[in-house]
Amino acid sequence: MDSHTGLPVVGMVGGGQLARMTHQAAIPLGQSLRVLAQSPDDGAALVATDVVIGEHTSYDDLLAFAAGCDVLTFDHEQVPNELIRALAAEGYAVRPGADALVHAQDKAVMREALDRAGIPGPAWSEVSTVDDVASFGDEQGWPVVLKVARGGYDGRGVWFLPDAAAAADILQPDHAYIVEQRVPILRELAALVARSPFGQVSVWPIVETVQHDGICVEVIAPAPDLSEELAGQGAMLAVRLADALGVVGVMAVELFETADGLLVNELAMRPHNSGHWTIEGARTSQFEQHLRAVLDYPLGTTTMTAPWVVMANVLGGPDGGMGIDERVHHSMAQWPDVKLHLYGKSPRPGRKLGHVTTLGSDLTEVRARASAAAAYLREGGDP
Amino acid sequence: MDSHTGLPVVGMVGGGQLARMTHQAAIPLGQSLRVLAQSPDDGAALVATDVVIGEHTSYDDLLAFAAGCDVLTFDHEQVPNELIRALAAEGYAVRPGADALVHAQDKAVMREALDRAGIPGPAWSEVSTVDDVASFGDEQGWPVVLKVARGGYDGRGVWFLPDAAAAADILQPDHAYIVEQRVPILRELAALVARSPFGQVSVWPIVETVQHDGICVEVIAPAPDLSEELAGQGAMLAVRLADALGVVGVMAVELFETADGLLVNELAMRPHNSGHWTIEGARTSQFEQHLRAVLDYPLGTTTMTAPWVVMANVLGGPDGGMGIDERVHHSMAQWPDVKLHLYGKSPRPGRKLGHVTTLGSDLTEVRARASAAAAYLREGGDP
Repeated sequence: MDSHTGLPVVGMVGGGQLARMTHQAAIPLGQSLRVLAQSPDDGAALVATDVVIGEHTSYDDLLAFAAGCDVLTFDHEQVPNELIRALAAEGYAVRPGADALVHAQDKAVMREALDRAGIPGPAWSEVSTVDDVASFGDEQGWPVVLKVARGGYDGRGVWFLPDAAAAADILQPDHAYIVEQRVPILRELAALVARSPFGQVSVWPIVETVQHDGICVEVIAPAPDLSEELAGQGAMLAVRLADALGVVGVMAVELFETADGLLVNELAMRPHNSGHWTIEGARTSQFEQHLRAVLDYPLGTTTMTAPWVVMANVLGGPDGGMGIDERVHHSMAQWPDVKLHLYGKSPRPGRKLGHVTTLGSDLTEVRARASAAAAYLREGGDP
Repeated sequence: MDSHTGLPVVGMVGGGQLARMTHQAAIPLGQSLRVLAQSPDDGAALVATDVVIGEHTSYDDLLAFAAGCDVLTFDHEQVPNELIRALAAEGYAVRPGADALVHAQDKAVMREALDRAGIPGPAWSEVSTVDDVASFGDEQGWPVVLKVARGGYDGRGVWFLPDAAAAADILQPDHAYIVEQRVPILRELAALVARSPFGQVSVWPIVETVQHDGICVEVIAPAPDLSEELAGQGAMLAVRLADALGVVGVMAVELFETADGLLVNELAMRPHNSGHWTIEGARTSQFEQHLRAVLDYPLGTTTMTAPWVVMANVLGGPDGGMGIDERVHHSMAQWPDVKLHLYGKSPRPGRKLGHVTTLGSDLTEVRARASAAAAYLREGGDP
């Protein structure tokens, strides 16, 4: 409890853009997010008051950080599960807890839980040898998707294998892997859900996510031309999953839309890139909702604020060209209604430096505006 | 220029709720507001990284603070004008500058400028003696309004005088005063405008402000039943005034609506309580716009995001009752779509602790929701 404000203190482990935007959402709630960052240059460390520098893999650092917090939560899934378990055993309120978070940390555990809950996903199997991959591929058909079970992120740790031989160069004896059937997909969708310890659950409309090279570049809310039936199924699936896994906070369920319906691709148990559009596009943003959930406050309304909302990521472009300040200047002149979000990062090709959000009633125009502004803001790219 | 982000650094003198909400708006612009606060417990100091503790009346403190900034701006008008002038003479970019800001610091200077610009206000006069007050009142009619020329705030430094004798207990030889005709008003309105050094100007819709005991308690956007003619006049008046005074940043023009049209009551040259509704209620909030203006970025769209937006201030109530955390909890359950803004202040009766914003298409319902939530949140009051 903060003695000055009379409000509980939320600590977020990880100081990236998700913590940065969570701090932004914390301010109106009377909060000041406590952040465990790796460096004073981390996006959240640049904007928050209560920053502790430390390693999320060090139990000593986590314990020292936790001491100032009423609730602990995360901006990524990289804290070892056994350390989360140990913090909870010390009496700290950790949300989501280790038993829930493991499903976003270990793809084999996640696939098993989905199977138990009867929630559809691609065929899958744990594998550790080329022979394991070969027998799965021969049964399910080639190509297959090989994934590192723990630690993958943004397309890293994922390989498309045309045959079993291709696995030979990838498989390492000290890593766990799963292999999945490569399903023919129509497009990628995401269902965003929040759940509080009290058990209240809320969902936002299902969105379409557009990826390039495994990185999300655009999110369209709501997913265009999604049948009411699939939209309802996606929402119900997210709610059932949040309940079944005991999630607290925001969970993003990445989905494949296929000719046979929806399949779960991945889970993230934190605010997620597919939900950045909610900052301006929904009455309650995913960042505010995550805070409400981990504080066990009642959840906010998730109604959209416009018929169409589009988010486009601003990625780092090739070096050179005008500086970011000049690009911001010109983009604001060109698009006075585009909402800009910069994460305080030094530019590097392909790095997510920020995002833009557009809103309106004409989807084609709203999409075009978002991608034009995002393309313009690419550091060093051509205007 | 911040070497890490490549963006200019904005310093705000004053660490209250306006700086707090400006920091919130700075985060998505890639900024981290540098704040000169009087105490580490100031609202903005509780949430910003780059906080300097110092006095806004000390030139040494101001100079040390300015050294880390590309642009200086203010969350209040209490910095002595000569110190602002001295900072500018040292080469610092101070926005708004001393020549503009003086109009929000000295009511006599403001009234003279309005008269020169042909912008209507109540009849007025500088006064220093009871005789001065008597001759003004006898000419214009009683009662009259006596105001301290410099340093008044939120109803402090304003007196309604039934006769000249009442001035005797108020007038101090070391203060400057003006006296104004007490005009019969229909209601109070406010025009909010922003201007950049480049000269770009933008306005939000004219709002109605509801005051109790000289403190703004409710703002309705747009002002209900305002004729198109008066709405246009109010906007033009604000634009002309911003231009005439050379304002940079946000300026609030407090207006009286009278049977004979609009009169200017007061000016504030910073984000203002009458503009808090813009955080959710306009495409660009007054805080983002203030930053864009002082950074000389192009200004953002001021379109409203809903037909009606109402802001109600949350004031401190009598001591006792349940704590703020419990009140927040219950208010969120009751009104999941009310947007809460707490300023991190310790409660004290009558103190502005925060505000709530509601949006919708039915004005009666939107107003009722805002005032019910604000009343509930009054610290210590009855639920």
